[in-house]
Amino acid sequence: MEEVVRIRARELGLDFGTLPTGKYNAITDVPGVTVGHVSLIQGHGRLIPGQGPVRTGITAILPHGGNLYTQKCPAAVFPFNGYGKSIGMMYVEELGICENPILITNTLSIASALEGGIDWVLRHNPGVGISERTPNITIFECDDGYLNDTRGRHVKREHAWQAIATASGGSVPEGNVGAGVGMSTVAYKSGVGTCSRIIKNSLGTWTLGVLMVCNFGEREDLIIKGIPFGRMFPVNEAPTHRNSNITIIATDAPLTCPQLKRLAKRPPLGLSRVGNICRWGCGNIEMAFSNYPWIHPQAKPLIIDNAEFLDPFMMAVSDASEEACLNSLFQAETMVGVNNQVREKIPVVQIITYLKNSNRLW
Amino acid sequence: MEEVVRIRARELGLDFGTLPTGKYNAITDVPGVTVGHVSLIQGHGRLIPGQGPVRTGITAILPHGGNLYTQKCPAAVFPFNGYGKSIGMMYVEELGICENPILITNTLSIASALEGGIDWVLRHNPGVGISERTPNITIFECDDGYLNDTRGRHVKREHAWQAIATASGGSVPEGNVGAGVGMSTVAYKSGVGTCSRIIKNSLGTWTLGVLMVCNFGEREDLIIKGIPFGRMFPVNEAPTHRNSNITIIATDAPLTCPQLKRLAKRPPLGLSRVGNICRWGCGNIEMAFSNYPWIHPQAKPLIIDNAEFLDPFMMAVSDASEEACLNSLFQAETMVGVNNQVREKIPVVQIITYLKNSNRLW
Amino acid sequence: MEEVVRIRARELGLDFGTLPTGKYNAITDVPGVTVGHVSLIQGHGRLIPGQGPVRTGITAILPHGGNLYTQKCPAAVFPFNGYGKSIGMMYVEELGICENPILITNTLSIASALEGGIDWVLRHNPGVGISERTPNITIFECDDGYLNDTRGRHVKREHAWQAIATASGGSVPEGNVGAGVGMSTVAYKSGVGTCSRIIKNSLGTWTLGVLMVCNFGEREDLIIKGIPFGRMFPVNEAPTHRNSNITIIATDAPLTCPQLKRLAKRPPLGLSRVGNICRWGCGNIEMAFSNYPWIHPQAKPLIIDNAEFLDPFMMAVSDASEEACLNSLFQAETMVGVNNQVREKIPVVQIITYLKNSNRLW
Amino acid sequence: MEEVVRIRARELGLDFGTLPTGKYNAITDVPGVTVGHVSLIQGHGRLIPGQGPVRTGITAILPHGGNLYTQKCPAAVFPFNGYGKSIGMMYVEELGICENPILITNTLSIASALEGGIDWVLRHNPGVGISERTPNITIFECDDGYLNDTRGRHVKREHAWQAIATASGGSVPEGNVGAGVGMSTVAYKSGVGTCSRIIKNSLGTWTLGVLMVCNFGEREDLIIKGIPFGRMFPVNEAPTHRNSNITIIATDAPLTCPQLKRLAKRPPLGLSRVGNICRWGCGNIEMAFSNYPWIHPQAKPLIIDNAEFLDPFMMAVSDASEEACLNSLFQAETMVGVNNQVREKIPVVQIITYLKNSNRLW
Repeated sequence: MEEVVRIRARELGLDFGTLPTGKYNAITDVPGVTVGHVSLIQGHGRLIPGQGPVRTGITAILPHGGNLYTQKCPAAVFPFNGYGKSIGMMYVEELGICENPILITNTLSIASALEGGIDWVLRHNPGVGISERTPNITIFECDDGYLNDTRGRHVKREHAWQAIATASGGSVPEGNVGAGVGMSTVAYKSGVGTCSRIIKNSLGTWTLGVLMVCNFGEREDLIIKGIPFGRMFPVNEAPTHRNSNITIIATDAPLTCPQLKRLAKRPPLGLSRVGNICRWGCGNIEMAFSNYPWIHPQAKPLIIDNAEFLDPFMMAVSDASEEACLNSLFQAETMVGVNNQVREKIPVVQIITYLKNSNRLW
Repeated sequence: MEEVVRIRARELGLDFGTLPTGKYNAITDVPGVTVGHVSLIQGHGRLIPGQGPVRTGITAILPHGGNLYTQKCPAAVFPFNGYGKSIGMMYVEELGICENPILITNTLSIASALEGGIDWVLRHNPGVGISERTPNITIFECDDGYLNDTRGRHVKREHAWQAIATASGGSVPEGNVGAGVGMSTVAYKSGVGTCSRIIKNSLGTWTLGVLMVCNFGEREDLIIKGIPFGRMFPVNEAPTHRNSNITIIATDAPLTCPQLKRLAKRPPLGLSRVGNICRWGCGNIEMAFSNYPWIHPQAKPLIIDNAEFLDPFMMAVSDASEEACLNSLFQAETMVGVNNQVREKIPVVQIITYLKNSNRLW
Repeated sequence: MEEVVRIRARELGLDFGTLPTGKYNAITDVPGVTVGHVSLIQGHGRLIPGQGPVRTGITAILPHGGNLYTQKCPAAVFPFNGYGKSIGMMYVEELGICENPILITNTLSIASALEGGIDWVLRHNPGVGISERTPNITIFECDDGYLNDTRGRHVKREHAWQAIATASGGSVPEGNVGAGVGMSTVAYKSGVGTCSRIIKNSLGTWTLGVLMVCNFGEREDLIIKGIPFGRMFPVNEAPTHRNSNITIIATDAPLTCPQLKRLAKRPPLGLSRVGNICRWGCGNIEMAFSNYPWIHPQAKPLIIDNAEFLDPFMMAVSDASEEACLNSLFQAETMVGVNNQVREKIPVVQIITYLKNSNRLW
Repeated sequence: MEEVVRIRARELGLDFGTLPTGKYNAITDVPGVTVGHVSLIQGHGRLIPGQGPVRTGITAILPHGGNLYTQKCPAAVFPFNGYGKSIGMMYVEELGICENPILITNTLSIASALEGGIDWVLRHNPGVGISERTPNITIFECDDGYLNDTRGRHVKREHAWQAIATASGGSVPEGNVGAGVGMSTVAYKSGVGTCSRIIKNSLGTWTLGVLMVCNFGEREDLIIKGIPFGRMFPVNEAPTHRNSNITIIATDAPLTCPQLKRLAKRPPLGLSRVGNICRWGCGNIEMAFSNYPWIHPQAKPLIIDNAEFLDPFMMAVSDASEEACLNSLFQAETMVGVNNQVREKIPVVQIITYLKNSNRLW
């Protein structure tokens, strides 16, 4: 059965809007963007804080292949629900730029990830902190403490380095990888999800990609294509207040900062369709960047914008956020974590069967 | 057939979460809150700007029955998509208070509505502008120009006055009334929608109500309970870039300003389930207020908050926003407007039949 | 004596930083920018609300000479103290554009000003509200109620039209003109003030101009060049809670929206040097726009910015805000208003003498 | 001479408004607030990145003496100039609470400081990350790289711990201590500065305190009491783009989150009077908290506020920010740092003499 269900949401017959996807249906379809994962899975049984079990990781997203610190990208952030401890957003908000790898990890490891990110910038920019200014690193986090020894802070600075150094294009692993290793959604196992859209307009052909670390909600919240599966499936009694959802949006279209900010607001629209109501303690943190100055240096940002140009991008963000979330759920596998706590895989076959019987597959 | 379909979404078998509704399933279930509508429908045929046809109106929401200017309420605003011309939000954002009737009307009539709102405050507060400070009036707007002679600015200051003066509790008319007269959603006729939720917690029993003027989207966007009806129904070729969606949230719970702001962010989550992707020019503007200081003067605002207390309110906003939107659509009737342009009623029977056949009714 | 003192701050020997001014030392030094004032002064004696005396007006600023609605400008707003009832800022914040004349008037006349602004756009754009979208008008306000029959709302829509229609370049009248007619600052008469700066950098030579309607503070707050004159001069016992300060920044430099927003934050820095502490009810509302797309269509916005480029603009805003405020005070004349209430002219000779004796003139 | 000048600004005859100070004229005058400094000064001569010389430190501010994580305080942040890498502000903005020690250190040490802050919370709250949620730590930073081997990141997690553990009330060391060790302002040596104000109103007697780490500006920017000393003193040719200014505001008054946010906006007003124009890369980051729920548990937050109550607090922030900045400059001593670069002490005697001769001392 696993072969059947370890496939992506779209391949199961679910549809997510009318825009075409890129080649890999991944954030790496955006020219220049690469992704690196480091997954840390060690030990079993009783939680001994500081020792394990370890069920965590870190994910890096690089906007392009050049020197990110000197070749900065227009960017925007939006914390739809700012309950979270992500780092580096004030600077992005003020200047409208992304100047470093974007890192995602577990909540208590943000300091190590930051240290590792600084290591990486210092190494590649000998003048930083001496003749040049200091760097801003964006670190996003979700809480994987249901499965992971979070207090152990097992993600170290070298893991951040490794995630950055091994980032690559092409197909992106999803589910229990990188920052997604220990994450849960609606009390099922989730992790990393990604997808992409192609947008053609009078200015050219552009790609928009989304990478998400999904980690939200109570069992009862789950909705797929309008079906409230969360109320049909068994209640999960385990404490599930271990939340936050991170969405990174990449594009090579020549968008301005206000436009990128508008995109960064919209992932919760797609997530709402999977049941994310952005509960009190469930952060929804979003970032969007465009690498056009380095990929399409001739492209001019659209200062006076309009619906014809922007609507497809807005549609793409909503649709892709829904799809990336379901990819995250469908690609993740059951995991046993601290104190033998179990996050089961979402019952994909049961869901697909129900949707088919309800005329919801195409 | 009309008798069958002119019923509210919930009565057709649709469900919107697990929280119970108030008596009228309307914003007026919140103790003290009243609503007034003035509907302006005149003339037929060719658009003669300044003359008609007229298909518009104005809606007033009063937070409580006292002197609103002297008995101010904690409040918050959030423009999820700030494409719009609403008035008075800066002051609410700065001070965290609502001090006047809330008015909703068509885009080009905001000046008259503001004049009327000022009239009303001046009349009831002889010292304003002399010994007392000037008032802040919140005016929200949507564009009803597909059906209405918007340039004619037919809503006059006396209509604002009238809407305020006739505001009452109990059942709230929905559909083609007040500010909703000329509005459209996904190229079907929409208008005003409302509903409410009851929340019990350790501090007491509280009501949260939503009133929405729905006016968003292209035909293709429509989704109901996960079914993309918008792509199944005929394409509407008419220009539909006449948008904006206003949501007012009322409660009598002792919420602080940061908490109210968090609520004000969440209506787009419910609207997304009906297909609102918050397009480029489709404003989504939200306001939330609490009248507890005047309804429950002993209640203490929750300074140190938590999930147990707040989650039900957040759930209520998502669920109620979805329901209010469908009430707005289901309660509206086909309307012929300027140049005999027609907004058809959404095909309720067809939708309900399809949902029933797809196991989507309870 | 009047001949001596009715001169601008700089001509009296005060200095405001090291950047050179433009030809007129006015916002109109920015190529393309024009300003129009309509001043309304009628009647004397006892306040009869609705009749007078009238001491008010309206000021219009046009970003360039073309069709503002179709030739939109990058823009940003920032309400440092959002206590105020200004209109149209949400849209500017969302889209980063200014698309219409900027109007400034008294608090209770914002509705008429808005109506007049809409009139003007509708007249010059026959498709607006029919085939085209509706316009966003920015209306800023201060409270002139100490001298003016504010409740009378004597600024009418035709005055807004007239201010726009008569806007011109060159020298800009200051003091008791336009929106400044009835304004007070630290319980002295103030009004409109303006000035400009020239900035040369590797990309070219640019102009930044400021126009301010000053209306803030208690007598005790006044500081000029570090001297706390407010505590040296007689206390003013009259109620002075009639505040708000509006600053419009114009430039022809190719600045991006985040950059313009950073400029829009900084007028309070200059105002603080004149004693503005942004009291509870003293709004400080700021807007910045760049008309470069229409004045220098080849200029490319500076996406990756730096200190060398931006610092002079930031310095210019601080310095020019201080200067414009003192121009506003020094150019205004004593005025008798409602109920024979008097706002005296600031004692310029006494101030200049003191400053000279304190080594504070250059 | 040093004995003469190593005194605080107020004692030299400078005045900063009319409100009285607390006993120590320090942030610790606010009941319950404590401050701890760890200063790191080691080595001389040539910069060897990673080894030294070391000229840095860390400062901790504790809102009250109880368990901060479980006894949270209302709080607000405001990045007037968000150019900076401070941590933890999103959460404060979203929830309006401060739940941990506030730490200030150098830019590249924020990761260690964060790690140390997490250590401290985990140690005192065994359930955090297991049965309880994860903590939000606020870390503020300035760049001390002109004197310090910033790349060496010499502040370690144990220094954060130590600063927290040794925090105490009473007199607060200023100048070259804690986070202030390596900081510069207008190319003179600066560091930590603090002061306080007492505010009496109908609700009681309250204290407001400010602690600032000053680190801004070019030599030419310096203004004291209106005298542009920066243009009178020798130009400093050394690169001075090593900026950011941090201001923490504490009070025991029962202020709401919107009110605290309004206070957090105002330190730049006081700083402007010392010449801070908030240059492109000079962050101005502010935080305000109230510990009233734990110090005055009966006090009710002022939901409907007014000028009488709030104006003195706003005045206090402006005045105290100016004073704390000058305390920071006047209390700091000349320091030799990396590569024997020197930051000279500001010439206090010369300044005071000039001010005396200009009638600027009281």
